[in-house]
Amino acid sequence: MSPPEGELRAYRLTLAYDGTNYFGWQRQPEHPTIQACVESALAEITGDERVKAYASSRTDTGVHAIGQSAVFRTCRWQAAADKIPFALNTKLPADIVARDAIDVPLDFHPLRASTGKRYRYQIYNARKADPLGARMHWWVRKRINLTAMREAAAFLVGEHDFFSFQSTGSPRQNTVRTVSQLTIEGQQHMDGDLYTLEIQANGFLYNMVRNIAGTLVQVGVGRERPEWIRDVLAAYDRRVAGATAPPQGLCLMEVYY
Amino acid sequence: MSPPEGELRAYRLTLAYDGTNYFGWQRQPEHPTIQACVESALAEITGDERVKAYASSRTDTGVHAIGQSAVFRTCRWQAAADKIPFALNTKLPADIVARDAIDVPLDFHPLRASTGKRYRYQIYNARKADPLGARMHWWVRKRINLTAMREAAAFLVGEHDFFSFQSTGSPRQNTVRTVSQLTIEGQQHMDGDLYTLEIQANGFLYNMVRNIAGTLVQVGVGRERPEWIRDVLAAYDRRVAGATAPPQGLCLMEVYY
Repeated sequence: MSPPEGELRAYRLTLAYDGTNYFGWQRQPEHPTIQACVESALAEITGDERVKAYASSRTDTGVHAIGQSAVFRTCRWQAAADKIPFALNTKLPADIVARDAIDVPLDFHPLRASTGKRYRYQIYNARKADPLGARMHWWVRKRINLTAMREAAAFLVGEHDFFSFQSTGSPRQNTVRTVSQLTIEGQQHMDGDLYTLEIQANGFLYNMVRNIAGTLVQVGVGRERPEWIRDVLAAYDRRVAGATAPPQGLCLMEVYY
Repeated sequence: MSPPEGELRAYRLTLAYDGTNYFGWQRQPEHPTIQACVESALAEITGDERVKAYASSRTDTGVHAIGQSAVFRTCRWQAAADKIPFALNTKLPADIVARDAIDVPLDFHPLRASTGKRYRYQIYNARKADPLGARMHWWVRKRINLTAMREAAAFLVGEHDFFSFQSTGSPRQNTVRTVSQLTIEGQQHMDGDLYTLEIQANGFLYNMVRNIAGTLVQVGVGRERPEWIRDVLAAYDRRVAGATAPPQGLCLMEVYY
C-alpha cells in the first residue's frame, strides 16, 4: 500500500478549517488538533508515519482558517503536487479541507518565507443572537458605532509597536509590526449588523487580532473615544487595551509569499 | 416561582435555529427536536408545564430557520409580549433563538393564517469542500451553469401543479401552488461559487424546495436541458424529477401574514 521511496520533496498545503471542534493547530497529547489530523491524513496517503506538518500560524482553540499554509516533506509522494489535496481530503474529517498543494524548496519555512498575513474578525451586533452564524462571529449586544470604530482603526494602520496588543504566553522580542490594511465593513444581517474587520500586516503578535478587535469594540460601544487608541499604543501595557475578543470570530484568510 | 394565572392569551414567536443537531421541529420521544426545546423553555418561563408550541412549518432533520413562526397559549404570562424573547433566550440552547413575539388572537393558526412562505437553498459549487459553510450548504462538485439553472427555474414561477415535486410521507390533496418568486444569485466564494436560491410561494408541499433544488441542479450540471422542467411538471410523477437535495442547504426565511 505504501508508495515507494523517491527523492525527498517539500510541499506547501493551503488548508481551510472550521476550528470549533479543535484545540487549535498545534498537536497536544490529549486533545484533537488540526495538526494531528493533517499529519495522520498525510501518513495515510504517503505511508510515512513520521511525516510532520509545520504551519505558518499556530491558530488557537476555536479559531478558523480559510488560507492556513502548512509545509511537509516526504520521499513517498510520486504524483504531481496538485493531486495531494484530493487524496488528503478523502482522509481528513469534513471540517478540515486541503484546498491546494504546491512544490516548495526543501528548506522552505512557512512563517519565515511569508511576507505577511491577512485575518478576518466578525462581530454580530444585535440584541438577540444569530444561532446560524454563532460559530463564526462574536455576538456584541451593545450598539456599535461603525464610524467611531473606523476612526479608531485608522490609528493602527502603519508601522507601530504593538506591545500593548500582545497577550502573554508567546512573547516576541520585537513587537513592531506594519499593518498595511485595516478595514471594517458593515452589512445588515438578521435583526442587527454584521461587522467584518479585515487586517493585513507583515506579521502578528500573539492574540494581536483578537486584542485589536476587543479594543476597537470598546470604542464602538462608546466606552472610549477613537483617539484613546493612540494612548493604548503609547502605553506599552497590555492591561490598557480592551479584553481579548473570543476566538470564534477569527479566521486566518491568507498567508502571503 | 410560577407567575399567577391571568387571562388566556396567544402569542406568535419568530424563531431562528441552526437545525444541525436536531431531528427537525416536531417532538419525538427519543430525539432532540426544536419543538421540545421551545416547549421546555416556555414551561420554564411561564411555570405552565403543559404549554404547547405549534409551528407554521414542521422543518425536517438538519433544516434551519431564520424566520420560523410558532404559536403558544398561556394564562401565565403577564408582561408585554416583547419581553418574551429575552426571557425565553435565557432558557433556550444557543442554537435556537427567539427573535420576536407578538400578541395574536386565541384562534390564530400559524399555517392557516399565513399567506405564504419564503425559503432559501444554498449550493456551494467547487471541486473542494468549504468546511466553514458545510453546515449551511449542499456541496456540488460538478460545474454548474447558472444561466441554464435560471432558465429552468423560470418554468416553475406562477401557478402550477407541483405533484412531481412532492415527496411521499405527507401527501396533500391539492398539489397546486403559486410560486411568486424564484431567484438564483451566484457569488464567488473560496475556490468556487455559492448559489443562493430564494423561493417564495403561497404554500409548499412536503420536501418541495429540496426537490426543486435537486431538480434544478440536474439542469445546472448539464444532465438535462432547462425545458425538461416542463416535462417534469406535466408528468405528475415524483420519480421524473431530480433527487431530493440534502437538508443542510435549506433555511425557512420568512412566513408571511
